[in-house]
Amino acid sequence: MRVIETIKEMQMFSESVRMEGKKIALVPTMGYLHEGHMSLMREGRKLGDCLIISIYVNPTQFGPSEDLDKYPRDFERDEALAQSVGVDVIFYPSNQEMYPDYYQTYVNVEGVTRNLCGLSRPGHFRGVTTVCAKLFNIAKPHVTVFGKKDFQQLVTIKRMVADLNMDLEVVGLSTIREPDGLAMSSRNTYLKKDERESALSLSRSLKRAKKLYDHGERNAAAIIKDMRTFIEGHPYTTIDYIKICDTVTMEDVATIEREAVVALAVRVGLPRLIDNYVFGEPLKL
Amino acid sequence: MRVIETIKEMQMFSESVRMEGKKIALVPTMGYLHEGHMSLMREGRKLGDCLIISIYVNPTQFGPSEDLDKYPRDFERDEALAQSVGVDVIFYPSNQEMYPDYYQTYVNVEGVTRNLCGLSRPGHFRGVTTVCAKLFNIAKPHVTVFGKKDFQQLVTIKRMVADLNMDLEVVGLSTIREPDGLAMSSRNTYLKKDERESALSLSRSLKRAKKLYDHGERNAAAIIKDMRTFIEGHPYTTIDYIKICDTVTMEDVATIEREAVVALAVRVGLPRLIDNYVFGEPLKL
Repeated sequence: MRVIETIKEMQMFSESVRMEGKKIALVPTMGYLHEGHMSLMREGRKLGDCLIISIYVNPTQFGPSEDLDKYPRDFERDEALAQSVGVDVIFYPSNQEMYPDYYQTYVNVEGVTRNLCGLSRPGHFRGVTTVCAKLFNIAKPHVTVFGKKDFQQLVTIKRMVADLNMDLEVVGLSTIREPDGLAMSSRNTYLKKDERESALSLSRSLKRAKKLYDHGERNAAAIIKDMRTFIEGHPYTTIDYIKICDTVTMEDVATIEREAVVALAVRVGLPRLIDNYVFGEPLKL
Repeated sequence: MRVIETIKEMQMFSESVRMEGKKIALVPTMGYLHEGHMSLMREGRKLGDCLIISIYVNPTQFGPSEDLDKYPRDFERDEALAQSVGVDVIFYPSNQEMYPDYYQTYVNVEGVTRNLCGLSRPGHFRGVTTVCAKLFNIAKPHVTVFGKKDFQQLVTIKRMVADLNMDLEVVGLSTIREPDGLAMSSRNTYLKKDERESALSLSRSLKRAKKLYDHGERNAAAIIKDMRTFIEGHPYTTIDYIKICDTVTMEDVATIEREAVVALAVRVGLPRLIDNYVFGEPLKL
């Protein structure tokens, strides 16, 4: 396994792999790898002849009051985990390499980023799409793998790739959960012991939403109200949003008719956690 | 010579050319080819094993009150001209192919697009960078060739390519002029006979600016004042801007110290014409 820190070297490596007719899979990450990432990397290992992951805590997707500085990092541990699933290259650039002096170009996906986390975190998706556009140009993948936990992110990346005609496939994988149902996230490490129990209210509220839906409920407000009441019954929780959206436009729906997702963001103590469920799909909890 | 109308076919063609180890040169155009384009295509022919040009009047770079609908078009003539310089492929997509339903992604270069045409034509450069990002992803060139007549456009494209780590080279070529000095432009065809003479005031004012500079003048206001007075002495002219800018930041300079460009936009009758001169370079008039 190689660790590549410069853009030029990464591009030369990827170009030579492509010229050999081999297929490149890329898994972009911010490091502090957990089972969710492992699942993405294992899928990338299956999809590509060459598996590249990037580890980069991208400053442009953090707001000024967010947790950029204290975002958890442990490169040595990440290296060992990557090695264990057969990663070929870790791309591990510095901020100066990614955003040098005079940097001034941003990719904006407009419609699907307006709602949900786009409302709560202005500029977040602009940072995500910009860094992903860069990473795709640097690692030159044929296929890239993202998790469905960040559902709006996945929709946004797919939209960017389609709109800008990036010639690569975007694969979305199911959320990986702790045995008790908590969605895997690097931010779970912020949870104090007594907050951990309250954090389960997110996935459990999704289970309630699924049950209501499966029993025929199609009114978005009724499902949201049930979830809100349930989550508010747990200490340390502050709801940022609970919304039911069309999976194509990411706009709120009043009645579930086409494919819809219920997505929520809840602060539990310090960390802001997100989770979601696409109605009609299985929910392993 | 092939004409390709779909993105998928263009990408498959380019990918197969790249896999053969051949170098692709791309010349993006809006058609209605003139000697300026011919010069770009001849250079592209030299630089690439495979020469692709695109002909696409890109709606997203026109403002609502601009000349999108009456922009001159003549595909058969363009085809013959492209053939004559040895173009391998004309990429000739429809609007529906380039901007299908739900289209919502834009590339913004911020700093260098603020001044000059960015002030006069809000959204223009966003359209230019977006369509170029798309064309680069579609035609997959190793090198792309632009004219220096659209100086701010060239700086903006170079900025985007560097910032987003697009793995291609951007070559800028000198402006091609009519024998009397008028910079070649598809929009020259709008000029009525008596406006044609007044249009020469643009290039002649640049010649005056060069002379002042060569005699030691470094005060931007003094050079601009001379040019303004000169151009205003010609009928049918309405000056949009005359500015002297740093070629890296495209910000106005008061005194010419680092590399600077004098750029101007002048309406002559109907058409809005642009021209520029980088101080210290030759000016063939």
